[in-house]
Amino acid sequence: MKRVSVIGASGYAGGELVRWLHSHPEVEIAYLVADTRAGEAVDSVWPSLRKLSSGSMSSLDPQEIASASDLVFTALPAGAAVQVIELLLAEGTRVVDLGPDFRLQDVASYARWYGREHDAPELVAEAVYGIPELHAEMIRAARLVANPGCYPTVVTLALDALLRDGLVGEPIIVDAKSGVSGAGRSASRDTSFSELEGNFRPYAVGTHRHTPEIEQSLANSGTSPRVFFAPHLAPMTRGILASCYFEPLEPVGQTEMIALLRAAYAESPFVRVLDGLPETKATFASNFCDLTVRVDERTGRATAIGAIDNLGKGAAGQAVQNMNLMFGFEQTAGLWTAPVYP
Amino acid sequence: MKRVSVIGASGYAGGELVRWLHSHPEVEIAYLVADTRAGEAVDSVWPSLRKLSSGSMSSLDPQEIASASDLVFTALPAGAAVQVIELLLAEGTRVVDLGPDFRLQDVASYARWYGREHDAPELVAEAVYGIPELHAEMIRAARLVANPGCYPTVVTLALDALLRDGLVGEPIIVDAKSGVSGAGRSASRDTSFSELEGNFRPYAVGTHRHTPEIEQSLANSGTSPRVFFAPHLAPMTRGILASCYFEPLEPVGQTEMIALLRAAYAESPFVRVLDGLPETKATFASNFCDLTVRVDERTGRATAIGAIDNLGKGAAGQAVQNMNLMFGFEQTAGLWTAPVYP
Amino acid sequence: MKRVSVIGASGYAGGELVRWLHSHPEVEIAYLVADTRAGEAVDSVWPSLRKLSSGSMSSLDPQEIASASDLVFTALPAGAAVQVIELLLAEGTRVVDLGPDFRLQDVASYARWYGREHDAPELVAEAVYGIPELHAEMIRAARLVANPGCYPTVVTLALDALLRDGLVGEPIIVDAKSGVSGAGRSASRDTSFSELEGNFRPYAVGTHRHTPEIEQSLANSGTSPRVFFAPHLAPMTRGILASCYFEPLEPVGQTEMIALLRAAYAESPFVRVLDGLPETKATFASNFCDLTVRVDERTGRATAIGAIDNLGKGAAGQAVQNMNLMFGFEQTAGLWTAPVYP
Amino acid sequence: MKRVSVIGASGYAGGELVRWLHSHPEVEIAYLVADTRAGEAVDSVWPSLRKLSSGSMSSLDPQEIASASDLVFTALPAGAAVQVIELLLAEGTRVVDLGPDFRLQDVASYARWYGREHDAPELVAEAVYGIPELHAEMIRAARLVANPGCYPTVVTLALDALLRDGLVGEPIIVDAKSGVSGAGRSASRDTSFSELEGNFRPYAVGTHRHTPEIEQSLANSGTSPRVFFAPHLAPMTRGILASCYFEPLEPVGQTEMIALLRAAYAESPFVRVLDGLPETKATFASNFCDLTVRVDERTGRATAIGAIDNLGKGAAGQAVQNMNLMFGFEQTAGLWTAPVYP
Repeated sequence: MKRVSVIGASGYAGGELVRWLHSHPEVEIAYLVADTRAGEAVDSVWPSLRKLSSGSMSSLDPQEIASASDLVFTALPAGAAVQVIELLLAEGTRVVDLGPDFRLQDVASYARWYGREHDAPELVAEAVYGIPELHAEMIRAARLVANPGCYPTVVTLALDALLRDGLVGEPIIVDAKSGVSGAGRSASRDTSFSELEGNFRPYAVGTHRHTPEIEQSLANSGTSPRVFFAPHLAPMTRGILASCYFEPLEPVGQTEMIALLRAAYAESPFVRVLDGLPETKATFASNFCDLTVRVDERTGRATAIGAIDNLGKGAAGQAVQNMNLMFGFEQTAGLWTAPVYP
Repeated sequence: MKRVSVIGASGYAGGELVRWLHSHPEVEIAYLVADTRAGEAVDSVWPSLRKLSSGSMSSLDPQEIASASDLVFTALPAGAAVQVIELLLAEGTRVVDLGPDFRLQDVASYARWYGREHDAPELVAEAVYGIPELHAEMIRAARLVANPGCYPTVVTLALDALLRDGLVGEPIIVDAKSGVSGAGRSASRDTSFSELEGNFRPYAVGTHRHTPEIEQSLANSGTSPRVFFAPHLAPMTRGILASCYFEPLEPVGQTEMIALLRAAYAESPFVRVLDGLPETKATFASNFCDLTVRVDERTGRATAIGAIDNLGKGAAGQAVQNMNLMFGFEQTAGLWTAPVYP
Repeated sequence: MKRVSVIGASGYAGGELVRWLHSHPEVEIAYLVADTRAGEAVDSVWPSLRKLSSGSMSSLDPQEIASASDLVFTALPAGAAVQVIELLLAEGTRVVDLGPDFRLQDVASYARWYGREHDAPELVAEAVYGIPELHAEMIRAARLVANPGCYPTVVTLALDALLRDGLVGEPIIVDAKSGVSGAGRSASRDTSFSELEGNFRPYAVGTHRHTPEIEQSLANSGTSPRVFFAPHLAPMTRGILASCYFEPLEPVGQTEMIALLRAAYAESPFVRVLDGLPETKATFASNFCDLTVRVDERTGRATAIGAIDNLGKGAAGQAVQNMNLMFGFEQTAGLWTAPVYP
Repeated sequence: MKRVSVIGASGYAGGELVRWLHSHPEVEIAYLVADTRAGEAVDSVWPSLRKLSSGSMSSLDPQEIASASDLVFTALPAGAAVQVIELLLAEGTRVVDLGPDFRLQDVASYARWYGREHDAPELVAEAVYGIPELHAEMIRAARLVANPGCYPTVVTLALDALLRDGLVGEPIIVDAKSGVSGAGRSASRDTSFSELEGNFRPYAVGTHRHTPEIEQSLANSGTSPRVFFAPHLAPMTRGILASCYFEPLEPVGQTEMIALLRAAYAESPFVRVLDGLPETKATFASNFCDLTVRVDERTGRATAIGAIDNLGKGAAGQAVQNMNLMFGFEQTAGLWTAPVYP
C-alpha cells in the first residue's frame, strides 16, 4: 500500500480526490489537509463521507506530510501551493499538483495570464504536464506532475490526433460549456442557485486563463494553432462539453476522422470515441472522456466534440490516473467504475 | 378591441401566446383551439390559467374561427397548418404562423430540409418573414406573417447589422444552446427530467432544419454567408444563448462593433445591446433580445452573442409583436413587462 | 398616479417589487434605495431591467424619500428598517414593511425568536398584519402594514376557514417546502448551485422564526392551535408548497371541506381552490395561492395543501396587493397577469 | 465468482443494478434482459456503460437465464415478473425481485391496492421482505427476496427502533419527497423536464400503493400503526427525504431518541444516524440511509427524518445488499463506495 495525502481537501477537487482514493485498492490516505478548517471532522466538511472517513482535517505541515506520504496531491488556488511543493519535493515526496502553477512552461506567459510572477521558475521546467493518454512515459518518471486544467484536458484529447495528422487549420474556435462546480466551493452570488437555475451564460470570452494552456498543450502535436476560447457556465453541477471548430486542411470525411481518433486511442481505456454525439451525463462521476467529430460538407468546417466530468477526467480522476502511472499501477486502478446515470 | 384566436393552444408556444394575449390591452381571445383536447377546460390544459381563463379548448373549425377573428395565430407542427391557413386567408382573416411552413421562400429547400413537398407553394411568395426589427413595413401590410424560428431570430438580430456593414467573413459558425421547452410538449424519453437534469448535449449538428432559415434570413443583409449551425440542449426550460463566430473582414474593434449594433437598434425597443455578456435569465419570460460582440485580437476572430427566451422573442412574444404591427398598435403593446428574475 | 419607493431594492423581494411596480398602471417609482449599491445603475443590479429602468440605486435618505413618496416599501433584514419606518411615518408617508419587525404583536415573543429587543414597541400595536383576503378593512386604513412572511401567508390561507368552522384539532403539523430565493441574495455556500442541485433538505425544524407568526396568524380565527413547523429547501428558485396536517374535529369529508374553502374565498381573486392537487409551478411569478384539502378516512387525518410563489403572494405580490387596498385601487391592479408556465 | 442476471435491465432500477454489479468483486453478469430492446447493445441503452459492457440486451428466456445464473434480479412492473419468478425458482435459481408483487403478505390487500388478483399467492408466503438491517437471517436463507419499495425502506429504517421501544403513537404522518427517477424511464409529459424544473408537487396523497407496504413493514415491530402517507415529487433526479411525524408516547427527548437509533444500528454499516439534519445529496449514488429525530417540546410532537438515494438504498443498492447476504458475502461487498458530492 502506498500512502498519499491531499492538500486542499475541503474544495471540490480535493473532495473528489478523497472519494476516488477511498475506493482505491492500492493506496491509503495519510493526511487530508484543509488549513482553514483544520481540526474539523472530515465528515463535517463532507457529510457524504460519514462512516467512510473517521478522521479530521489537518493543518498544513509540509515536513510531517512529506514524511508520512509517498505522494501528495495539492489542490490549491494559483500561487498558493508553490512553496509547499518545493518543500515536499525537497523531502523526496512526489507531487501531483491540481493547481495551475506548473502547467505553463513559459513563465512569462504565466505572469501575463495570472498577473503574478512565478515563485519557483526553476521547478517549472521539471514539471511534467500530465495527460496520461499522451505523456505516460514522462509521467511515470516524474517527481512533479502538473495536472491539466479541465478545459485543456478535453480540448487536447479532442484535437491532438487530428492535429498530428495535419488536418486542422487555424485558428481553432473552442466553445466550451461547464458545470458550476468548476468555479469552486467558495460562496459567491455569481454561483448561487437562484442566479444560475435556468440560466446559461458565457464568461471570460477570449480572456480565460486556460487559453495559453490549451495552446501549449495542442502545440505538443507539432503544430501551434491559435485558439479563440469561449467558456460558458451551464446550469448543472458537473460536466464539460467542448466543441472545437476548425477548417479541415485535407478532404478527410467524418467517418475517417472518427476512425482516426479511434485508432489514436485504441490503448487508452478512458477515451471513448463515438459515432453518435457525446453528452456530459454519460461521463458523470467517472474518469471517461467521450469524443466524436462532425464534418459539415456544406460549409467546409468541422468540429471535434468532447465530454468529460470536470471533477473526474477534468481534475481528480485524471490526478489519480497520473498517480497510478507514477506508482506503476494499472492506469485504471481504482477508477474503473461506471458513470452514475441517471 | 381586436379579436384573435390561437390554433394549437395546448403546446408551449400556444400556451405562451395565451399568457401574453391575456394581458394585452387591445385584444380579446375568440377561440383557443386544441384539436386533441377539444372540450377540455383551458385551465385543465394550463393549470396556471385558473381564474384567468374560464373557457374550453375548441375543435378546429376554420370557418367559424375566421368569422370570429380579426387575426389567427397558428402554432402547429410542419405541414399541419397549411390548409387551415389557406382557408383562413380565403375568409379574409389575417394569420401569424408560428410553424415553419412559410418561412423558407425556396420550396425546393423546404422539400429538402423538411422531407415533404409544400402543399401551398403559391402562398409562400406572399408570406412575410416576420422579424419586426428588420421588416416592419412589410409586416404591417401582410396578410400572412411567417413567425421566425427561435434560433434564426437570435442569430439574425446578432449578425444582420454587422453583415450589412461588410464586417463578417464566411463561413459563420453558430454554436447555440437552448432550453428544453423548444422541443415541445409531447412526452419523450429524450426530454424527460431524469435524462436531462445535469446533462448538456449537442443535437442535429450541421443538420438542423433551422440552418436554411438562418442562411435565408442573413441573406437579407445583401450577403449570403454559409452557416455551420450546431444546436445544443441545456438543462433549463427556457432560453437560448447563441454564439456566432466569424472572421471580421475589416479591422474594426469590439467597441466599434458594439456601437454599430447599438446604432442599428436605436429604434428597436426589444433589442438591448450590452457592453457586458448576455445571459438567458435576464430575458426570461420576456420579449427582449440581449446582444453583444467580442473580438479576439489574438486570433483575429470575433463572436456576436445573443440571448432570448425561446418562447418569448423566439416564438410567442415575437408573434404578438408582429400582430401589434399588423393592427397598427404600438410595437410594445402588451409586451412591455419586466423579465422574471431570479 | 401615486408615487412609491422601495428601500432594499437590491434583494430578491425588492427586485420583485420593482418588476411588479413597473407594470402597475396607477403608480410610478420615486426612489429605489439600495444603500450598499447606491449610485449603481438599476440595470447593473438587475440586468433583467435593462431599458425598463434607466435610473440609479439611491442611498437611504428617509426625509427625501418621504417627501417624494405617497407610500414606501421597506424590504430589509430584521431590525434594519425600524428606525427608517418611524421617520417615514412621522413625515406622513405610509409604509408596507416586507421585513419581520412588525408582524409579531407580542414584543416578548419577538425578542425570544429574533434574539433582540424591539426598537419601537409602541409602533407594533398600530401595525396591521396584511393578508388582504382576511384583513382588507384594516389594511385600507393602515399607516403601517406588516407584510406577512411567505410561510405564514400560505399556511393561514390554507387553514383559516377550516379553523373558523371548528374543524381543525391541534397540534397542527406544517411540512413546508420552499425554493431557494427565500434565503435571500447574499452569497452563501449553503445556497450555492453545486450544493443544492439535486438536493432536498430540511432546516430549522421546530425552530424557524415563522413559527410564532404562523400561530399568531391562525389565532385570528378565534382558536389558538400550536403548530409544529418543519421547513425544507427544495432545489428550485421560487415556490412554496405547504402541507398542513391536522385531525378533523368533525366528520366532515374532503368534498365538503373543499366546498367550504371555495365559499370562504368566493370574493378573493387570488385564491384558487382546486379539486386536484396544487403544484408550485402553476403559481410561478404570480400573486396566486392554490389550495386544496385531502382527508384520509383510513387514518382520520387530513391535510390542507397550499402553493404560492414565495416572491409573489409570499412577498412582493402581496405587498402590492396591500398597497392597492391602501390606495383604494382594485385589489388586482397591476397583478392580474398569468403565471409563467412552463 | 457467482453468476447473476438482471431482468428489466433497461429501466432505471435495472441500470443502477448493472452499475453496482459491474464493480462488484465477487459476481459476474450472465444476462441482461430487456425484452423490448433485445439485441440492442447494452451501451446503446446505457451510453454511460460504453467500454464497460460490451454485450447486448437479451430477450427473456427464463430457462436459459436460470441455467446460467446463481441468482436473478427481476425489475419489472407490477404483475409482469410473477410467472418468470415461478419458473426461475422451479429451476433452482434464487431471485431478488425489485417489483412490488411479493412485498405484501396479504393477497387481499395486494388485490385492493394493485387492482389485480395475485397470480402466485402460494409463493407470497415464502417470499422474504428484504430489509437487511432487520431481516438478515431470513434473507440469508431465502430463495425469493422481495426487495422493498423506496418509500417503505426509508420509513421503516426511520421508525422501526422507535416503534419497538413503544415511543410512537398513531397515526403516523409520513410526508415524503422523491426525485423523479422513482417514476421510471417511460416517456410521460408528467415527468418531462419542462413540466418539472422549478416545480414541487404532491401526488397520490393517501392513496399511494406503498401505504399498505409501509404499514406492514412497520407492523414487524410488534405494533400496528396506521400511516397517512403523502408523497411528493421534487425537481431532482435521485433521492428521497421522508419526514415521519408522530406523537411520542413517553417523555423521551430528542437526544435520547437519537441515541436509541444509534444503538439500534450499531452493527448496520449503511445506516448513519446524525445529530444534524439529513439531506438527500449526502447519499447520492450510494447505499447509505441517513437518519435523525427532532422532538418539538412546544407541541409535543416529533419527527423521524430519513434520506436515501431512491435508486440506491431504495432499490438497486439494497438489492445487491440482499444478494450479498444470500451468497454469504460481506454486506458491504461492492457497495462500500463514497456518495458522489457535489
